[in-house]
Amino acid sequence: MYDIIIIGGGAAGMSAAIYALRGGMKTLLLEKVATGGQAAKTYEIDNYPGFADCPTGPDLMQKFREHTEKFDIEIRTEAVREITDIEKPVKTVKTRKGEYQTRTIIFATGATPKKLGVSGEMELSGAGVSYCATCDGAFFKGLDTVVIGGGNTAMEDALYLARFCEHVFIMNRSKNFKASKLLLEKASSEPKITIYTDMIAEGFIGNSRLEKVLAKNIQTGEQGFINASGVIIAIGITPENTLAKKCGIELCERGFIKTDMYLKTNFDGVFAAGDCRVSPLRQVITAAADGAVAATSAINAVISGQ
Amino acid sequence: MYDIIIIGGGAAGMSAAIYALRGGMKTLLLEKVATGGQAAKTYEIDNYPGFADCPTGPDLMQKFREHTEKFDIEIRTEAVREITDIEKPVKTVKTRKGEYQTRTIIFATGATPKKLGVSGEMELSGAGVSYCATCDGAFFKGLDTVVIGGGNTAMEDALYLARFCEHVFIMNRSKNFKASKLLLEKASSEPKITIYTDMIAEGFIGNSRLEKVLAKNIQTGEQGFINASGVIIAIGITPENTLAKKCGIELCERGFIKTDMYLKTNFDGVFAAGDCRVSPLRQVITAAADGAVAATSAINAVISGQ
Repeated sequence: MYDIIIIGGGAAGMSAAIYALRGGMKTLLLEKVATGGQAAKTYEIDNYPGFADCPTGPDLMQKFREHTEKFDIEIRTEAVREITDIEKPVKTVKTRKGEYQTRTIIFATGATPKKLGVSGEMELSGAGVSYCATCDGAFFKGLDTVVIGGGNTAMEDALYLARFCEHVFIMNRSKNFKASKLLLEKASSEPKITIYTDMIAEGFIGNSRLEKVLAKNIQTGEQGFINASGVIIAIGITPENTLAKKCGIELCERGFIKTDMYLKTNFDGVFAAGDCRVSPLRQVITAAADGAVAATSAINAVISGQ
Repeated sequence: MYDIIIIGGGAAGMSAAIYALRGGMKTLLLEKVATGGQAAKTYEIDNYPGFADCPTGPDLMQKFREHTEKFDIEIRTEAVREITDIEKPVKTVKTRKGEYQTRTIIFATGATPKKLGVSGEMELSGAGVSYCATCDGAFFKGLDTVVIGGGNTAMEDALYLARFCEHVFIMNRSKNFKASKLLLEKASSEPKITIYTDMIAEGFIGNSRLEKVLAKNIQTGEQGFINASGVIIAIGITPENTLAKKCGIELCERGFIKTDMYLKTNFDGVFAAGDCRVSPLRQVITAAADGAVAATSAINAVISGQ
């Protein structure tokens, strides 16, 4: 019988493990692939406070891993297939390899930015191709950049980059924008921003780093290049919510897990942390803080027998 | 004219500075004493994910400071006396030395645990005397500990410590407890917890580390010693809210700043981060995450001209 089972071994899950283990909880971390999550796929992380030397994502996540190992974390590389009795004081978490009973569960299943699926995207990811302006925008200071998308995030990203980039090109695949009128007007009236509509990216080109974007006007069929050193692909983020949905955990309309301030879901003893939950910002630092909060709430649930 | 003025240079304020500066914002950090805040007064920090070697509080805060300096932070050692035009798009922050205009403000003024003010308390702080079970409880594994207080936090702390400590003594200065009935019953029925009522601590005794607590029954006047290697003083936490109150920022009944999910206060362009706000947990990791969220929200306010 476990006190806390953590599902997902990214920054949120590993931070939750540190707090749970320091709290004397019998804890199991289940990770389907490898610890580190989204951050471990990130080239450099420049804004996790305390690490001024801009570690690589894998390096920072290795430090998280070592931190959990200091407290003898039990990690099993198993994908959770099902949770039964989620509404009861003792819940059962089932994987292909076994069944585990636990008093509390922390969902730290993460989320993935949506990909365009075009040539060069994967190859130049972390070398000019990015999915997060807050994370990587600062690397493009003084350079020409492209933002792909037409929603609020794309407009905010473009306005953000316009503060310190040479020029920003927004590419939206239609004439209609999902963004709010206010943000669209702001972006339209910013001299450092050029907006292309009916325009899609067909590929990213560059030797070791991004040099240009192959663009196509889907009305005219015309193709051309936009020279740019950076591109932010801002077409959305997909939460890993298959299991949560199956369990009846309440989600927002975009599919993220709803929680209260203590990161409790609609079930007693079930919490969510990190990118998989409704959250104002998705960064390593916020995921790690979420893990701490969710674990502390889970500990309080265990010790008060709720 | 600044984009963002951050008031307070603890973990929250410095993290906010990192995010603000990476976002190309003209940023000023005002700190009345020295950067590092509450964490810099902490002996060891064992649960800031990524730092498995348990750095001292000053060392970890020095790393935060270096991280802000990498982005050329402007720090002034000035106490804020007044803020005018807080409800307007351009606000004025006044110190004894100058006046600064800014579009947005982040309150990161922190909070301080309440002290007993008895002999040995200051001297043995960080050497057995602690104000935070989540932070320091794990250092007392297998040892006898004392929790001072009668509220929910004191009961939760005692139940938490009982999971891995040898024995836990709760000392409450009256027969009445502020704690919820449920938590008090849980603590009362836990064999590893002994509750003393009408009991106050008159001093902490030990050579280099805490060895015993001088206790006094305030009904009988009787004095005695409780042998213990650790004590958690859980009698409350005082937010630094003088300035916020003066500005008309909305506070909870305990004096902490109320915010929404984006850490916005009741004024446009005014945010709060870290221990000074209503928060589920007060740790370096949560303060740092708050700083990131507040700065990102401030950046969005600046770029969208809200």
